[in-house]
Amino acid sequence: MGGDRAPEEIVAGALAARGPRLEPVLHGREPVVTPFANGLPVVHADDVVAMDEKPGDAARTKRGSSLFAVCRAVAEGESDVAVSAGNTGALLAAGLVEIGRLPGVHRPAIAIPLPGPDGPTVLIDGGANADARPEHLVQFGHMGAVFAEEALGIASPRVALLSIGEEPEKGNKLVRETHELLRATGLRYTGNVEGRDLLASVADVVVCDGFTGNVALKTLEGGIQTVMTGLREAIGAGLRTRVGGLLIRPAARVLRAKLDPDTYGGAYLLGLKGLVVIAHGSSSRAAAANAIRLAARGVEGRVVERVAARLAEGRADPAG
Amino acid sequence: MGGDRAPEEIVAGALAARGPRLEPVLHGREPVVTPFANGLPVVHADDVVAMDEKPGDAARTKRGSSLFAVCRAVAEGESDVAVSAGNTGALLAAGLVEIGRLPGVHRPAIAIPLPGPDGPTVLIDGGANADARPEHLVQFGHMGAVFAEEALGIASPRVALLSIGEEPEKGNKLVRETHELLRATGLRYTGNVEGRDLLASVADVVVCDGFTGNVALKTLEGGIQTVMTGLREAIGAGLRTRVGGLLIRPAARVLRAKLDPDTYGGAYLLGLKGLVVIAHGSSSRAAAANAIRLAARGVEGRVVERVAARLAEGRADPAG
Repeated sequence: MGGDRAPEEIVAGALAARGPRLEPVLHGREPVVTPFANGLPVVHADDVVAMDEKPGDAARTKRGSSLFAVCRAVAEGESDVAVSAGNTGALLAAGLVEIGRLPGVHRPAIAIPLPGPDGPTVLIDGGANADARPEHLVQFGHMGAVFAEEALGIASPRVALLSIGEEPEKGNKLVRETHELLRATGLRYTGNVEGRDLLASVADVVVCDGFTGNVALKTLEGGIQTVMTGLREAIGAGLRTRVGGLLIRPAARVLRAKLDPDTYGGAYLLGLKGLVVIAHGSSSRAAAANAIRLAARGVEGRVVERVAARLAEGRADPAG
Repeated sequence: MGGDRAPEEIVAGALAARGPRLEPVLHGREPVVTPFANGLPVVHADDVVAMDEKPGDAARTKRGSSLFAVCRAVAEGESDVAVSAGNTGALLAAGLVEIGRLPGVHRPAIAIPLPGPDGPTVLIDGGANADARPEHLVQFGHMGAVFAEEALGIASPRVALLSIGEEPEKGNKLVRETHELLRATGLRYTGNVEGRDLLASVADVVVCDGFTGNVALKTLEGGIQTVMTGLREAIGAGLRTRVGGLLIRPAARVLRAKLDPDTYGGAYLLGLKGLVVIAHGSSSRAAAANAIRLAARGVEGRVVERVAARLAEGRADPAG
């Protein structure tokens, strides 16, 4: 029921992702969902969390919604992973309320794979924790590294810290303290990176607090959209450029697909006792299918178990 | 002497900006600068601050450099404003050491005009203060508003706060506290904006701490460059798209000029007893000329005096 294009596009994505080792289960208002389900099982949920509903309100009054039901299905072992294109804050709340944190996890965090020329970079935290302490960021580093290894297949991921200069003395107090802690972990920590490195495949995991991460993500989104829109307008302004625009259209499509955050299917909520995936609110069927496939890869790679084990090891190292 | 293309491009920019009411004075190694000066006065400085030199080291050992000399010329009333494309951190240090803070200013801040469809948006702080308190951000709001009024000619500027959601309860602790203080000022405060709004002319002044501001600026720069480079590569990959690329070239140029941060000439260091302008390190002659012209507008608009007066008023309001 979640997302701007539900249920039709989300269900179509589930159908596209269905395979011998992947069985989608749909949660939502049965009469609305079933016409699209094409044989997929539908679990009825009376309620729906609106896209603009406050997470706290949803947690109090909407436990009967499909959004909370998918998380409960994971908590109760009926499903292996929850995927939703709905309200991000409410999904975070549902994950905490229904599934709960892994032992030893200070704060769950949102991991977002960003596209890069030589492969994705995982930004963590993308917005779950607006205020964070250095020890939280160290855990984000561990969780992001496990996610990069198991879900994205990156061996020995390079972990970096988002700052405002490469030198260790650059950054705010949080970053300078985190830098010292990260150096003392067993992670392959490569030091500070800057905002301009996020799409450059300079690191495999980039750690930051959720406020900085969310500002960076939305700034990136806005910047890319400004260029794309500006180019379309500039091209539309003259006959000659309009003809040129038609000729470059295939190239522009390739580029758009490359930069599309939906390539990697969304945001992964890590640090819970089960896996939760937040697909873009505007997800098309292709984006929903990618989100579901990567969610399944996370299950096969046993990301939750590996995060739990890594954090247990982490507690043994000086920065844990 | 500062910037990647000094002295030639910087001096050419000074010559282009020269006018009946604008007299550039060049500071640098005389034998190097004079051949380009074309009649502009040259003040000899033995030393040069390197682009990668640490600000603290520069302040200890390079007071004889042109970078410190331009700030001293402002402090001593020989010049009205200092412009440099050199080392940003060192220029900040030189401004503090040679010119000094205005009375009542907690922290000087960097104001950066960003391009937008309906006019510029001033981001403040762009990186002078990695750690800041709510009362600092309130002062940034006042300084940014004065700059928007006097240097950019924006009457009654809309002042917003950079956060991760429009609702007042969104954001980190710093932002939530600042939000309450800004509401109590006499500023035309319009609430929170997000990263995606920075290039959208949604506000005239956007306030943030220097860490967040610097991450946002560099992320924006990286995102725009990724699209531009990606488009060039995608276009170059086929004959048809290459022809299309030639046809849209004028449109791409218009767009690039629109998005060029050099349109507004660089970064303005506010909160000192004199005005200092930091031009892009890669400044061309056109960018240097724009920086010098906007610096002159800041002098004519009496930005420093107006900031001093505004902060004195500000101390009378509840959030001052």
